[in-house]
Amino acid sequence: MAAEFEFIETLRKRSGQHPMLKNGIGDDTAVLAMPADQLVTCDQLLDGVHFRTEQHDLKLIGRKCLAVSLSDIAAMAGVPDFAFVSVAFPQNFGMNQAKRLFEGISLLANEFGVVVAGGDTTSWPGKLAVNITVVGHSEQPPVSRRGAQVGDAICVTGPLGGSLAGHHLSFVPRVREAQILNKSCRIHSMIDISDGVGSDLHHILRESRCGATVDAAAVPISEAARTIADDRSPLEHALHDGEDFELLFTMSESECQRVANDPLDNVDVFRIGTVRQGPGCDLIHEDGSITPLRSDGWQHSFGE
Amino acid sequence: MAAEFEFIETLRKRSGQHPMLKNGIGDDTAVLAMPADQLVTCDQLLDGVHFRTEQHDLKLIGRKCLAVSLSDIAAMAGVPDFAFVSVAFPQNFGMNQAKRLFEGISLLANEFGVVVAGGDTTSWPGKLAVNITVVGHSEQPPVSRRGAQVGDAICVTGPLGGSLAGHHLSFVPRVREAQILNKSCRIHSMIDISDGVGSDLHHILRESRCGATVDAAAVPISEAARTIADDRSPLEHALHDGEDFELLFTMSESECQRVANDPLDNVDVFRIGTVRQGPGCDLIHEDGSITPLRSDGWQHSFGE
Repeated sequence: MAAEFEFIETLRKRSGQHPMLKNGIGDDTAVLAMPADQLVTCDQLLDGVHFRTEQHDLKLIGRKCLAVSLSDIAAMAGVPDFAFVSVAFPQNFGMNQAKRLFEGISLLANEFGVVVAGGDTTSWPGKLAVNITVVGHSEQPPVSRRGAQVGDAICVTGPLGGSLAGHHLSFVPRVREAQILNKSCRIHSMIDISDGVGSDLHHILRESRCGATVDAAAVPISEAARTIADDRSPLEHALHDGEDFELLFTMSESECQRVANDPLDNVDVFRIGTVRQGPGCDLIHEDGSITPLRSDGWQHSFGE
Repeated sequence: MAAEFEFIETLRKRSGQHPMLKNGIGDDTAVLAMPADQLVTCDQLLDGVHFRTEQHDLKLIGRKCLAVSLSDIAAMAGVPDFAFVSVAFPQNFGMNQAKRLFEGISLLANEFGVVVAGGDTTSWPGKLAVNITVVGHSEQPPVSRRGAQVGDAICVTGPLGGSLAGHHLSFVPRVREAQILNKSCRIHSMIDISDGVGSDLHHILRESRCGATVDAAAVPISEAARTIADDRSPLEHALHDGEDFELLFTMSESECQRVANDPLDNVDVFRIGTVRQGPGCDLIHEDGSITPLRSDGWQHSFGE
């Protein structure tokens, strides 16, 4: 029966110090002393949807569970500070498996200066479910989805598609890149690509009440997307696979030209299109033909 | 495929305004402008452990999922402000069921001035799992588990035991009571009773490095605990059933006397024991015999 407390004690010893953490694991709530604006995001990752416990290393699963929330903080150009980890463990899960999952979380947390400040662990007659809430802060005004302006250049930070081949577990959340971008350029809107460019660009367009054209030839396609042997083109994979976790953002044409002429250190910027009056989003193919950019991507739906 | 977005739009329209909420549902993270210290807590409630979807009304399930986190904020004498709701829906779950779950959450949220500011919904091949993170703040220094002092009176705010008969779904989180207590008395330590007094008192004692005696005759026993027909006594139920979600707290003997002579409005205070030098916790029975107060309660453990 002492297993849960013992496990929480293990986590408590491992959890680091943080100047903004007044009270961490071991009380009813964490107590944070945060500066200015705070960012809060949560993601629930589930066995059979976002990972497969039969197939993937638990350390990589733990890593991914934190990485997707750090990616959300990055999308606001924020700095992540604290993670709150809730885990529903399958009943046959052993202590060593639990520790391995948390090892993956901790390693990535340490890499980004994030402290695990609380959580909840329960054993249940179901599959592994992990919810991580990350609290961060923003040194500059956070970059939302709703600031895109007609005429803006649309850019991404890296090649897209085929993430199921491994990238979905090993990606580096673009926290540092977002910081550099937001300090070096006037970013108008930003999102991280979780559902696929097709879907996530539509989020920006809907929130900003405008439309866009995307140049198919300009979309950076990952090696993984190029080598998938199925009936969908590499471009299709790049636009709709999702879980790329690159940043998708807009800035003025002149700002984009400036960055093209004087590239940023450690941040790749691929310009893929232009914001125009809405509604809709056109995909301009290499042969000059135009089709609507579909907004479907990696998405879940209810029964009924 | 539009089901998830449609559902999130429903939530977005329903979610209220809050002076500290700068950016709610509809971006990568919520943006909060919080005063002073912030309190953060998360609880993951699971089908088959904390509720049963075959047996319980989804509205009551949703209510409970938020109530347990509000109870944690109460245990720190804090004011809850925001909730972030992650739900893993079973694949056969319908939109109406999802709405009913959120209706239960929203009703309680409104009652306590809490705004649902974000979350994550996913359909999966598993059972219903709900994680709610609540962010609150503290107008006075938050009351932790670690301030109990030798000589303190140990008190609870209501009758205990038998919560499975219904109280575990319908309890009112003691947010207001905690505010009144913390403004009217010098509370040294506090916790909410989720695992049972036996277990939760040991949390306070361990964190405060002291021991206690509990007077069996003084433990308030609920009507539900008195009428359970099994081989355990009503006292056993009151001490170990858990999910009472009353407050368990300590204050000086003189402060306790003052409250006994001049009762607080709208807060019941039952004194059940005294903090003494540690270690251990003695239960003094009506016949004068003494047994250790067991720390086992409603707790989960891993396999292996």
